[in-house]
Formats: sequence, C-alpha cells, structure tokens
Amino acid sequence: MRNVQRKLSIARGEQPAELLFKNANLVNVLSGEIYRTNVAVDDGRVIALGEYEGAEVIDLKGSYLAPSLIDGHFHVESSMLTMPEFARAVVPHGTGAAVIDPHEYANVLGLDGIRYVLESSKNLPVDFFIMLPSCVPATAFETAGARLTADDLRLMIADERIAGVAELMNYPGVYLGMESELDKIQAGKGKNIDGHAPGLRGKNLNAYVLAGVRSDHESTELAEAQEKLRLGMHILLREGSTERNLATLVPLINSQNAMNCSFATDDKLAGDLVTEGHIDHCVRKAIKGGLPPVTALQIATINTARHYRLRNFGAIAPRFWADFIVFDDLQNPVVRQTYKKGVLVAENGKYVATLPTAVPQPRSTMNLRYNAAKDFEVRHDSAARIRVIEIVPNQIVTKESIETASIENGRVVPDAGRDILKLVVVERHRATGNVGVGFVRGFKLNAGALGSTVAHDAHNVVVVGTNDKDIALAIKELEKLQGGQVAVANGKVKAELALPIAGLVSDRPLNEVIQCISNLNAAARTLGCELEAPFMTLSFLSLSPIPELKLTDQGLIDAVRMRATSLFVE
Amino acid sequence: MRNVQRKLSIARGEQPAELLFKNANLVNVLSGEIYRTNVAVDDGRVIALGEYEGAEVIDLKGSYLAPSLIDGHFHVESSMLTMPEFARAVVPHGTGAAVIDPHEYANVLGLDGIRYVLESSKNLPVDFFIMLPSCVPATAFETAGARLTADDLRLMIADERIAGVAELMNYPGVYLGMESELDKIQAGKGKNIDGHAPGLRGKNLNAYVLAGVRSDHESTELAEAQEKLRLGMHILLREGSTERNLATLVPLINSQNAMNCSFATDDKLAGDLVTEGHIDHCVRKAIKGGLPPVTALQIATINTARHYRLRNFGAIAPRFWADFIVFDDLQNPVVRQTYKKGVLVAENGKYVATLPTAVPQPRSTMNLRYNAAKDFEVRHDSAARIRVIEIVPNQIVTKESIETASIENGRVVPDAGRDILKLVVVERHRATGNVGVGFVRGFKLNAGALGSTVAHDAHNVVVVGTNDKDIALAIKELEKLQGGQVAVANGKVKAELALPIAGLVSDRPLNEVIQCISNLNAAARTLGCELEAPFMTLSFLSLSPIPELKLTDQGLIDAVRMRATSLFVE
Repeated sequence: MRNVQRKLSIARGEQPAELLFKNANLVNVLSGEIYRTNVAVDDGRVIALGEYEGAEVIDLKGSYLAPSLIDGHFHVESSMLTMPEFARAVVPHGTGAAVIDPHEYANVLGLDGIRYVLESSKNLPVDFFIMLPSCVPATAFETAGARLTADDLRLMIADERIAGVAELMNYPGVYLGMESELDKIQAGKGKNIDGHAPGLRGKNLNAYVLAGVRSDHESTELAEAQEKLRLGMHILLREGSTERNLATLVPLINSQNAMNCSFATDDKLAGDLVTEGHIDHCVRKAIKGGLPPVTALQIATINTARHYRLRNFGAIAPRFWADFIVFDDLQNPVVRQTYKKGVLVAENGKYVATLPTAVPQPRSTMNLRYNAAKDFEVRHDSAARIRVIEIVPNQIVTKESIETASIENGRVVPDAGRDILKLVVVERHRATGNVGVGFVRGFKLNAGALGSTVAHDAHNVVVVGTNDKDIALAIKELEKLQGGQVAVANGKVKAELALPIAGLVSDRPLNEVIQCISNLNAAARTLGCELEAPFMTLSFLSLSPIPELKLTDQGLIDAVRMRATSLFVE
Repeated sequence: MRNVQRKLSIARGEQPAELLFKNANLVNVLSGEIYRTNVAVDDGRVIALGEYEGAEVIDLKGSYLAPSLIDGHFHVESSMLTMPEFARAVVPHGTGAAVIDPHEYANVLGLDGIRYVLESSKNLPVDFFIMLPSCVPATAFETAGARLTADDLRLMIADERIAGVAELMNYPGVYLGMESELDKIQAGKGKNIDGHAPGLRGKNLNAYVLAGVRSDHESTELAEAQEKLRLGMHILLREGSTERNLATLVPLINSQNAMNCSFATDDKLAGDLVTEGHIDHCVRKAIKGGLPPVTALQIATINTARHYRLRNFGAIAPRFWADFIVFDDLQNPVVRQTYKKGVLVAENGKYVATLPTAVPQPRSTMNLRYNAAKDFEVRHDSAARIRVIEIVPNQIVTKESIETASIENGRVVPDAGRDILKLVVVERHRATGNVGVGFVRGFKLNAGALGSTVAHDAHNVVVVGTNDKDIALAIKELEKLQGGQVAVANGKVKAELALPIAGLVSDRPLNEVIQCISNLNAAARTLGCELEAPFMTLSFLSLSPIPELKLTDQGLIDAVRMRATSLFVE
C-alpha cells in the first residue's frame, strides 16, 4: 500500500480523505448487515468507515452502497468485444472484476493470445484475473492454432493476475488419471483449479474432485450441484446468454453454504450484456428466486473474491479497493452508479470512464489452403444414406440423423427442400489444407450461406450453405475480413461482422458490434433461418467433445464414441 | 498427493479403500448439511463419499462424524506442556489442528524457541501451524531473552507450517504507523496477520485494520466485536481458562457472517484442558448459546482452516486429511473417538496415539546474577508513602494503590498484616544483574514466598513473599530446577513444578504436571492465599503493556503512561 502514513493519518481522523461517500446505506458483505454510515476513500482505496471528513463529499442520501460485482467465470471472447469494449458493456451494470478464461484466444494464438488479453486488459475500470486454459486443443479431432501443455502453463502461472488453471474440460482424462491432465493440475498448485463436469456424478465425480479440481459451473440440475457442493466444489451459478441455470440452482443455497457459491456468466453476447445485464442480472434473479439480498450480493462479491483470492476485492472495508455500486431498490438492484478505485466510471447506464491506451493487435490468424471447386465436393455415384448433424435449438449438443442422400451428377448435394444443407470446415491456422464436409439440418436456409471463424474450440472456418458457390464466397469474404461472420446469398454479401482479432473479436466499438450482429441475424432470417442465434449455433457445430455428431477440419466426428466417422452409412 | 493413481482408482470404485467409515451421520461443513453416508479413507486422506468398499470397515451405526476441531489462536506455553503432552490433553477432545503463537518461547529463546516448537510438534496427532511472534520483547521496559525484528520474521515466514505473523499487540504502534510494526506486517505479506486490540474502537481501529491486520481475538463486548467484524477482521471467539468471551459474543453471529468467525482458547491450563475440554467446549457452549450445531461446527473447523489457509484441513470431502471426530449428541457433542489421518488416536477420553520420537531440549535459560542480601533491600530512613501494585482478581490489569510504607531498621519491609508483600523480579536471560523490587497487595500470604519463571512477557524470575529469606530461597530453588514454579515457607520448599524447557514448560507427562500445579495451589492456600490461580496472577505482574502498575527487572512501570516510575511517592 503506497502512501501508508498519509492513509493511516486519514484513518485516525487527522486529515480529510480525498473523497467521502456520505449517508450510504452500506451493504456490508463481511458482517452481513446493511446500515447507515460514511465511507472515506483515498488514493483508490477504502480508508475507513464512520465519521470522517472528505475534501470532496458525495452525499448518497440513503442510497445503497455495495461492493462492485465480480464474475467468477467468463469467456470474454463470447462477447466478440475487445477488453475495453467489454468493460464499456458491463461497467454500467456494476461489474468491477472478472475471472476470465481466454480459452478461445489460446486455441487460436496460444500463449500469445493470453499475453494479449493480459496487456489489453490493463488500466480498465474492470480488473481481470485470468485462469490459464487447460484444454488447448479440446480434442485430437480438430486442428487448433496452438497446443498448451502443463509446462506452457508453468511459464505464466506465477503472474499475479493469473488466478489459476481454467476449467478442466477433459474431465474423463482427469478422473481416469491421465498424466497430462494431472500435470496441468500440478502446474496450478497453490492457485485455483477450475472444473467443468456437466452431469458428472457419483464415483467418477469423487475421483475428479480428489484429483484437485475445486469448482464447477456446469450443473444444470439441483441434485447435481448439491452433490458437487458436498464434495467441496465451489459452485458457480451460471446465467449466460444460452446456459441459464440460476433459477434451477438457487434452492441449493442455504445460510450455511452460501459462502461456497459464486455467480458466473460463462458466455454472454454483447447485446445481452447491454440490455439484460451482467452479474447484476444474476443478483436480481437470485433475489427473485428467494435469496436474501445480502446473500445474493455476497455471492456476487466477497465469495468470488475469496475463492479466487482476489486481494482487496469484494468488500467495502479499510484496505479494499474503492470499487462500489450505488442503487436504490434492495429487492431489485439496478445499478445507478459504478465507481472504480473511487472514480465514477458509469452513471445511469452511461459509461464515463476514460479510454485506455491502445494495445497492438495480435498477428493475423487467417492462414487457409483449399480448392473450393474440388475440396467441397462429395462424389458418390449410387443411392446412399448419410449421417446428418441434427441441430437441437438453443443447445450445444446435436443429434445424428440418418438420411437418404440427394445425388446430382455423381455428387451429394444440399437439399434445401428437406432442410439438409452442406456444412464445410476449413482449417485456418496453419494452412494444412484440411477441409471437412458434412450435412446439417436445422438452419432452414432457402438460399445463400452463413460463415464464421468463431467455431468452438479450434475456431476454424465453418460455413453452412445451400450451394457451393455461396459457401466459397463466404469463405473468401471471411479471408478478406481477416476473420468474422458473414451472410451471403446469390453471390452477394448480405451482412458481415469483421473479427480481425484472432478471428474471434471485433476491433470496433460496442454499439457497432451489436448492430452488425443484429444485421447478420436479420440477414439469416431473410434467408429463411428461424434459429434464435444462427451464428452461435453454427459456431458450436465443430465442438468435437460434445455429443452426438460434429464436423471438424478432420471430418465427421462421432462425439459419443469419440472417434472419426464417415458421412456414408455402410 | 502421493499414490495418486491408486487413490483415483479407489475413488472410481475399482478397488477397496484401506478403511471405510460406514453409516456415518456426516456433518458436512461444506454443504451445511447432516446426512447419512459412508466415507472412504486411504493413506490418511478422505478419498470419496458414498457407496464404497473398505478393507477395514468401521460401522458408525448412525453416530455423527465431523471434521476434527481447530483452535484458531493458542499459546501452547500456557498449558506448561510439551507439544506431545499438549496433544495428549486435547486429542481426546477432538482437536486435530491448532494455530499457535509461540510468543513465550520466542521471548525466552528467540528464533531457536520457534524452531524447537516446529521440531517438537512433528508427527503428532495434532497438526500445528505457527504464527511468528510479532512483539518480542513486549516493551522496552523489560529485559527479554530475545529481540525479533521484521527481518528475523522473514527468515522463517516461507516455511509451509508458518501461517503468518502473530498478534500485533503493539496496536498503538501499528495504528500510529511505526515503521518497525508496519515492517512486521510487510514481512507476513501473502500470509495471515493476526491482531490483538482489546477495546480498540473507532478511528484508531480503522487505522489498525487499514495497516493490514486481519483478525482479532480480544473482543470482550458485543459492540466491539461487531465493529471489528464490519471492518473485515476475522473474529476469534475466545474461551480460555480466564478470558471467557464466548457467551458474550455468540449473539454477534448470523447466517451471513458466521464464515468470518473462529474459536480460540488463547491461554488454557492443562487441568482445564483435560477436565473442561478444548474447542469441543467452545462448540458445546456456542450451541447452548443458540447457534445451530452445524454453524458451531463450521466455526470450529472449516472457517479456521480457510482463514489461515490450512490446506486439506477442516472438512470431510475428497482430498482432505481423514481427521475426524465421532459423537452421539448433536446438541451437546462429546467426542467419543478422534481419528488422525485415518488412525484412531483417542477413544472415550483415552489417548491411544503412539509416542513420537523425542526431540533435544533447548539450552538452559536460567542465567541470573544477583546479591540477595543487597539487591532485595529497599533502604529508607524516614516515613514514606509507596506505590503498591493492587491485584484485581482474575484480571491481568492491576490498580495502583498509595500506601504508607512499613519501615524497620531503615528498610521498607513487607507487612503481611496489611497484605503488603514484597515483589522481586530478577532478570534471568543474560545475567544483567537487573533486579526490580516493589510491593503488592492481594496475595494475602501470611508466611513464605511464591516464585515463578513464567512471568509475562519477558519471563524473568518473579517472586512474591513475606520475607527476604524465603524470597531468596524461592529463587535458589528455581535456579536449581532450571526454571519452574515454587512455594516455600520458613526455609523449606513446600511444593514445586520444574519447567526446565525455557523456564516455561515441563518435561513431565500431563498427569504429573496437573498434580504439581494442584500441589502448588494447595501450598499457596496453606500459606493464606485465597486467589483462584495465584501463580497465574503472579505471572502477569510483570506484563508491562497492561495497566496500571507493573514490576519488571527494570523496576516499577507506570503502564498507563508507559514510563518507569518510582516506588516512593514524592
């Protein structure tokens, strides 16, 4: 703590603080109380509570003053925003810190991606703490831009902004004792080890926890979360854009276990962050679900700070950072003001923080090699039955459907009439020439193609289309944009969003990004698509660890048996 | 974790564990629940909860199984027992770990004293974590055996059994920003910083917390504890032999702040530990005071483990040490069995752990230089008024009383008739020749003398007596014993307890120590003393930081104004 003597002198009441928050209804998450007091702030820190003087006085007139909110697990890439623009989206909602897993950056750029996140998140009104991605690449069935071993994690783990090792998604690898996975846990020793174990229960869950995993954010059922909590996992109650588990899990919380719970959003779109909110939305929803407001605010602040050991975050007491939110309705907290280290950074939904200095973008990541005319063709002479990826709306799982192939001139072709469209994945990191081709049902496009370089987890180029020409155009356009998302039809680009940063993130301001996403969705609807979030759905069709049938640059993957499979059913 | 693959295999249910605790009513301090399950243990650790097999099965038939109890702050020297004998006293009461401050050892032996505690506490059925003493010597008005600076603390802070820096008793030094004190806090950075701030409130308390102090165990009033909790201090609810604050402080605890509370005993005599209990007594008392049993057990286990970062302690879940207690009455838990790392170490009050290997005792610490005939005399020719230390029964504070001196042959002499006895302090660490002489009221001895080498905090020799001959005999006997406590009368030793380890601790077994203490108290009573614990009272008469009047080897100390004072009132 710098200027200790001055600060102690202020605390002793010998001189005024820079700033006094007067007549606050303080939400004290340490004592579990709400009461009227004043908060003296100097040099960005809380100095003291009580009767003090301030050179500047902010009279809160009885408004509630609580610590800024903390997200316990978030992939900032899901917003497609740079770190400063993400801050612009969430600071008006009271976010002061976030524990993030730059899993997508790492899949594309490796350690350089993590370093970029560290650099570009400095001096913002949100403090970011980083969990080191533990599953890069996600599986052997896709070609990512990087491969991170435990030794790679060791290169960065000591950094004070690194809070540990991120979600160990290869949970069978962990509970089966694979040395590579245990070594990653070992690399995080003394820091936190996050888990990711959807549906894991019973004996294998015991083994997963025993191996050293300390948290989970994947519970979708109450009994599942209860079992994890009983085994000592910190439970992150997730409420993102698509995965919405909060209401289901709130009944888990009682007065004797709430300290083992945090809120997390995991993945949330820019538009949803702006309109619905961030962790503030979780707080409101938890209160509506029956939690006492103080408990909900503890879950949103001190519990997360403690679990991830975020020093001087999550409470309003001497030595803590002066990260505050101000609101007026305890039963439905809507953030009116957000302060970061004593400085007003958002008010009435408006972001008023100063702009940070720009950070150089990482290298280009679009490195494709393919022959559209040849690589996208599926030759077959006779009648055949093919495996089709069947979309389950709003889910990342898919079904496998066996369909009769539509054959024209010795080639299997898309059949928009039956909603069987062509899906193409082109490796984009190291110009391997890998191209995967399959078919998918659920997009209902009657023309054109949709393409994206956001394609979990390897983030190769993925395109769905009604014809090869538009598919090829989409890919060309994505190359031109240096990554992005596009909707094309009849040889023309209908809408697009450039994502030149790792092919994942826009370099444009928040509002422009939201507008482009809106345009893309509108274009998809015009082409016949009825999905709520067609580009998000598209982005999960390559996610090889998730059942049942996926397509990567290496071809069709049977994601139940975890092995390559063929388009044609023998 | 050693033998990881075997342990994971057991967790997966592929092979039996060494040990299965079957049909436990598990007190799960993580989920805040009690429910029936089985606990699989292997190699000293909990492996899994649920349906498992064990090579050995312990059928608990529905008895409660909870984590072993943890003391958050204890001076083990107050028991006058070696570490193994202290374990013998508390393990039958369910203690599995203790955070200790070897303040007395350090005052006598410096870092060597701390090293002795570390060495002699290995391989015991209690795990000890050590806070590095921060106030050696306590003040400049007494001559201790050592002086520890922040740089000394830095020599040991990194040891994994060192949990931080112990209670910063010089609390004015801290809140006034004395560099020496702030430097000690700095030395503990990243570990815990314990506080000690009796009665400190308001602005100075804010400054004390701001400086980095994270806990307090000195609250005697509810409002005081509440204020400290609100400022972010971890509150240790103290219940020792003399300081008994638990009942007063229990109303502080609510469901939203209990995680910030622990139990501590601070100082507790061997006899009280055996008959009344240790942290189990705190649990029972807290439940009687209205706390839900699960909350009381959380305060006694996981809360303390978390605050002091005692890895793998304080809960029953995979990876935690198999430190268990078994009991039958949830409303009044009396420990029936204690397990350490899966091994039964106490049953029905009987200690059944194996004996540890002996550790060499530290060097002799009795190094006196004095001339009894000359040094103990107080010459004065004419009538005079003197400052007399007035004992307040069962308190460590004293009063100052002004009395007419009894003068014989040009010397101020004790006057048993008015209960004004002579008090002598002889420096014993470095043969400085320092001797302090004063007078005290409250012992009511009609003959003889009581002497002790336990004399807070410098632990010089302190003797109270009705005549110089018996005072001299007491000191001679203490030299012979190499430290201890004695009662003498009419030239004869009436009772004694040898404390050859640092002049503080016995080398004898628990029962012998308790018997000797009982003999000493009986002897004091025979000599007319009505105090409940005369040797404890005697041991606090040199404690110069505590008001009002004290006697050290440097003479009478005005402990209100913190300065030397004279026997004679001008």
